[in-house]
Amino acid sequence: MAEFMDVHRGMKGITSDQLRESHRADLAIEAEEQVHFKQAWADPESGVVYCLSEAPSAEAVRRIHQRAGHPADEIHPVPLTA
Amino acid sequence: MAEFMDVHRGMKGITSDQLRESHRADLAIEAEEQVHFKQAWADPESGVVYCLSEAPSAEAVRRIHQRAGHPADEIHPVPLTA
Repeated sequence: MAEFMDVHRGMKGITSDQLRESHRADLAIEAEEQVHFKQAWADPESGVVYCLSEAPSAEAVRRIHQRAGHPADEIHPVPLTA
Repeated sequence: MAEFMDVHRGMKGITSDQLRESHRADLAIEAEEQVHFKQAWADPESGVVYCLSEAPSAEAVRRIHQRAGHPADEIHPVPLTA
């Protein structure tokens, strides 16, 4: 398992409820790809959302986000943390 | 206090030691601006680094990173989390 940070753009005006609902949609199906979305952070003003996950691959992250209805614009493995 | 996610680009090849050293340089001076850098994640392959912080303003985050020798390319308040 590796950690990934993914980025969604164009989410200007996203509300707390919408973020929580999107996160729930990921959690509902993530186990099918052995992904776990640990946390999400959103800036409604610039419309950027960051998601931190553990997953077997970036492709698995991409598939879950896509099937949940919010494809990611970037997905980066983040093997280093401090 | 608010939460911020900032992004550094152009860090291709960054090592675990370099990330930890950069993080330590932030921690050493962050209190002067009431900032706290909570975590950092790096992708050495694409050269992108994400830092999560608590701070009174984006400007305070910007000043600490700049003084620590690694100015951020983007700083976003992230008032929403899930």
